[in-house]
Amino acid sequence: MNPKRYLPILQWLPGYGRATLGSDLLAAVIVTIMLIPQSLAYAMLAGLPPEVGLYASIAPLVVYAVFGTSRTLAVGPVAVVSLMTAAAVGQIAPQGSPEYLGAALVLALMSGLILTLMGIARLGFLANFLSHPVISGFITASGLIIAASQLKHVIGVEASGHNLLDLLLSLGANLGSVNLPTLLIGVGVLAFLYAARRWLKPSLLRLGVPGRPADMLTKAAPILAVAVTTLAAWGLGLDERGVAVVGSVPAGLPPLTLPGFDSGLWSQLFVAALLISIVGFVESVSVGQTLAAKRRQRIDPDQELVGLGTSNIAASFTGGMPVTGGFSRSVVNFDAGAETPAAGAFTAVGIMAAALLLTPLIAYLPIATLAATIIVAVLSLVDLGAIRRTWSYSRSDFAAMLATIVVTLGHGVESGIMVGVGLSLALHLYRTSRPHSAVVGRVPGTEHFRNVQRHAVETDERLVILRVDESLYFANARYLEDTVMALATRQPGLEHIVLACQAVNVIDASALESLEAINARLRDSGVCLHLAEVKGPVMDRLEHTEFCHEMTGKVYLSTYDAWRELRGESEAPLSRPCGALRAT
Amino acid sequence: MNPKRYLPILQWLPGYGRATLGSDLLAAVIVTIMLIPQSLAYAMLAGLPPEVGLYASIAPLVVYAVFGTSRTLAVGPVAVVSLMTAAAVGQIAPQGSPEYLGAALVLALMSGLILTLMGIARLGFLANFLSHPVISGFITASGLIIAASQLKHVIGVEASGHNLLDLLLSLGANLGSVNLPTLLIGVGVLAFLYAARRWLKPSLLRLGVPGRPADMLTKAAPILAVAVTTLAAWGLGLDERGVAVVGSVPAGLPPLTLPGFDSGLWSQLFVAALLISIVGFVESVSVGQTLAAKRRQRIDPDQELVGLGTSNIAASFTGGMPVTGGFSRSVVNFDAGAETPAAGAFTAVGIMAAALLLTPLIAYLPIATLAATIIVAVLSLVDLGAIRRTWSYSRSDFAAMLATIVVTLGHGVESGIMVGVGLSLALHLYRTSRPHSAVVGRVPGTEHFRNVQRHAVETDERLVILRVDESLYFANARYLEDTVMALATRQPGLEHIVLACQAVNVIDASALESLEAINARLRDSGVCLHLAEVKGPVMDRLEHTEFCHEMTGKVYLSTYDAWRELRGESEAPLSRPCGALRAT
Repeated sequence: MNPKRYLPILQWLPGYGRATLGSDLLAAVIVTIMLIPQSLAYAMLAGLPPEVGLYASIAPLVVYAVFGTSRTLAVGPVAVVSLMTAAAVGQIAPQGSPEYLGAALVLALMSGLILTLMGIARLGFLANFLSHPVISGFITASGLIIAASQLKHVIGVEASGHNLLDLLLSLGANLGSVNLPTLLIGVGVLAFLYAARRWLKPSLLRLGVPGRPADMLTKAAPILAVAVTTLAAWGLGLDERGVAVVGSVPAGLPPLTLPGFDSGLWSQLFVAALLISIVGFVESVSVGQTLAAKRRQRIDPDQELVGLGTSNIAASFTGGMPVTGGFSRSVVNFDAGAETPAAGAFTAVGIMAAALLLTPLIAYLPIATLAATIIVAVLSLVDLGAIRRTWSYSRSDFAAMLATIVVTLGHGVESGIMVGVGLSLALHLYRTSRPHSAVVGRVPGTEHFRNVQRHAVETDERLVILRVDESLYFANARYLEDTVMALATRQPGLEHIVLACQAVNVIDASALESLEAINARLRDSGVCLHLAEVKGPVMDRLEHTEFCHEMTGKVYLSTYDAWRELRGESEAPLSRPCGALRAT
Repeated sequence: MNPKRYLPILQWLPGYGRATLGSDLLAAVIVTIMLIPQSLAYAMLAGLPPEVGLYASIAPLVVYAVFGTSRTLAVGPVAVVSLMTAAAVGQIAPQGSPEYLGAALVLALMSGLILTLMGIARLGFLANFLSHPVISGFITASGLIIAASQLKHVIGVEASGHNLLDLLLSLGANLGSVNLPTLLIGVGVLAFLYAARRWLKPSLLRLGVPGRPADMLTKAAPILAVAVTTLAAWGLGLDERGVAVVGSVPAGLPPLTLPGFDSGLWSQLFVAALLISIVGFVESVSVGQTLAAKRRQRIDPDQELVGLGTSNIAASFTGGMPVTGGFSRSVVNFDAGAETPAAGAFTAVGIMAAALLLTPLIAYLPIATLAATIIVAVLSLVDLGAIRRTWSYSRSDFAAMLATIVVTLGHGVESGIMVGVGLSLALHLYRTSRPHSAVVGRVPGTEHFRNVQRHAVETDERLVILRVDESLYFANARYLEDTVMALATRQPGLEHIVLACQAVNVIDASALESLEAINARLRDSGVCLHLAEVKGPVMDRLEHTEFCHEMTGKVYLSTYDAWRELRGESEAPLSRPCGALRAT
């Protein structure tokens, strides 16, 4: 057992030097500035007090620096996980109640335990069952729901609803009670952030600012919006004119919290915790892998589970909420030159300073400003082009994506992701239940065999060669039986059927029984069954079976050997009984 | 639309002649004799009055003759389906109540509708998701439960229990109250039936009786046991000595019944009806296929669903119970020379005559006799050798089989089959989530490439060729990313990675995104990604994607072309940009 594998900090801490320190500190300053408004906003999205977002950006970052394998991933609250948190915890208790806060802590703890255990059991591959179209559809749908849910804060009306339609209808019904100062702030910040995204960087570049600082300044636009609108709200007394503001936020270090151990609550939250874990992990690991590859580094997905899991456990004991690796902040961290996870620990110090010193200043921060930063951030996740691309590439992938989007928008995040995963598995199983196979014939004058339907090839009426293009397992074994028996009944003068198995990696017990049935039925019809090009590991298993002894035909190294011997073109026998010979 | 396809009777009725009539009539007589005790026994096993078994062997046989595609399948009540019926209906009402009878009719109707709809929707492939080890384990476990549940009738004690352990414990606790005459009859019939199975046929053969009649006489042993013990019970007045007998059975034609349409009952029975449908269909279709193959006939699984479905609907309207094609009776029908489904219709006439005329005679039939015939029949289904064979062939198949057996024995038939299917799917998905792949090198002096770990082959430090041995889809796409990136980081001087795709039948949208990610990450590391031996249909799809345009490398017809060009051994370029060239 290699301690460096389970404590990745040992890989970089011993060689930590002054140059690396400088890069990491600079990156930490920039990420801190970006993370302050994000943390406040995503806590609000999750229905939690703003300081919870700050707390969730302190201890988890330090813990990830110890256990995580990505050098540049920045963890903390992210949009989609915050939405899922709100959906899960909202079913337990009303927003603002101590139970709501407690349930969020439990959710973080459970999610942390699930991730950590999955990592220890090396179950990272489970995340692979979330297909790209399902994730992409889920994130697009979540982005739309989040944006819709924040619109009310931007225009200053009341609205509620559990799905997109309800939200928009409720918003429409209350449009009469718009608060004008709120609308001005909200729409102003929206416009400013969009303009910053689109025009600020090109303008800075034209003014001669180098690329990287220009990029950093653009990414800092939200903090500018926060500062200006907070000052305006304070200076103009906007809270007295109906503009909702954050209000008093306690200054201080993260509290030590003990999540509740109520078994009823745990079982109610279990499915949500599992889905949050997997969605958060998938998002985080794909960011981590993309960034690692740019520097020819690698991350270990199973250890990443441990890194994210321990981060969530840390969040649950320090007044936080479920966290994961965020896309935009990790890119900023990487671009700002972070070299080791120490940058994350330094960011934690920065956020801690903010929690201690800046919280009195944000009492006048308008909610509309936070809502606008959320909308701009999540709408960049909405990828309608992916829907079109998926449609044109694969109809079955499109079906899974569409189902995910429709159910997520219409019924909720948990059902959406479960329907998407279920449907994509069902479609995959349906596809493999009809394995591709082709009757092949000999390309004249060569040893090659090709599909008789696509090529002009030699065939023989006493002999059919069927190339099997997939591993044989229970779901497709009977389909092979049907295919072979159809061939046998179609061709009256048939004497031999050869299964060419170059693409068969596995023959499971059901497929073995199907081969036995095929062999017996062909024997009853007076046809011999032969195999060709069986792979080594597959033949190893077949050797010890009854099928191998009862097979009416032989095993050939190559399809060409079978062709020659069964047509009587070879003088010496080219085959041996089952078991004595293997293809390699 | 071909009417012969949907009404298979049109395939054989127009040409029906006198010779066929003779064969079918003979087979019908033999099957009728065999079916009478079986029908009574399986009705008892299902907890239903004995006449229900006879009714279920009349109308369904006629309907199957119209809609079924097997020439020799004999439908009616069978052991496993009767057990599942008892388990499902027993949760609705106590045995003997009118509600119990009514629920059995509803179950037959629902099962009939499910099968028929699956047939019309061509969903016969769904049955393929019951793997052989799961079916085999399920039937073995069901056989043990059935045998245990009938033991009490054989030895004449009270016992009850929902799983094997409870049954046996309850039996043991009541052993003191054994009824001696019952025990003598039960054990006597058991011994006689076993002896008949083992010694009767060889003795008859030795006495010069030809093979087929000897076989038929052996199969008729149960009717002899029924006749002898009924006479004994009547002559000796055994019912007054505590021997349980069938009692008065109404004589007459099957009643017309109308299954209830209570939505609560329907939803309670839905899962059971679905499982009964699928288990019954799988059992029936495998018998049908085996027999059809012996005469080079074929059966159409989707039309078989319609045949079995309409038979069950017929059962539900004529006082019957769920039915399917039975193994032993179909073999007897086939061996007795049945040539068309008319034999089934004639059997129905025979059973109808029995329902009209013989029912008064079976009032004294001891329950112990029926129980003994059930035990002998179901223990022949218990296949402990299959457990050992599966263990030695495949551990994952064994795991699914064992789980099915343990859960069926310990918790019940429905949970057993669901756990088995779930686990076999999960294990299959796990296996395909780690696709087989191999780094290959050139066999010196040839155009062949083989696994570098198994063969002495040429390699090149600037070039890695990875042969991908499976279709790429969401569950294994990220594993490929990991594999490729591990190769790239391990070999510092690497310039080119070639994916040899001869075994890739499908690249789904997730795998396409993984290829895009691999391409982008390799580009960031200064390595080019190439493809070789891409199949036609796969290349057709790739051509229209962004990946195809962004790919850093090229597409080669053969691995050897890639090897030569990338090592600078060819003078003219052997590749073209993506899309301009395809492997065939």
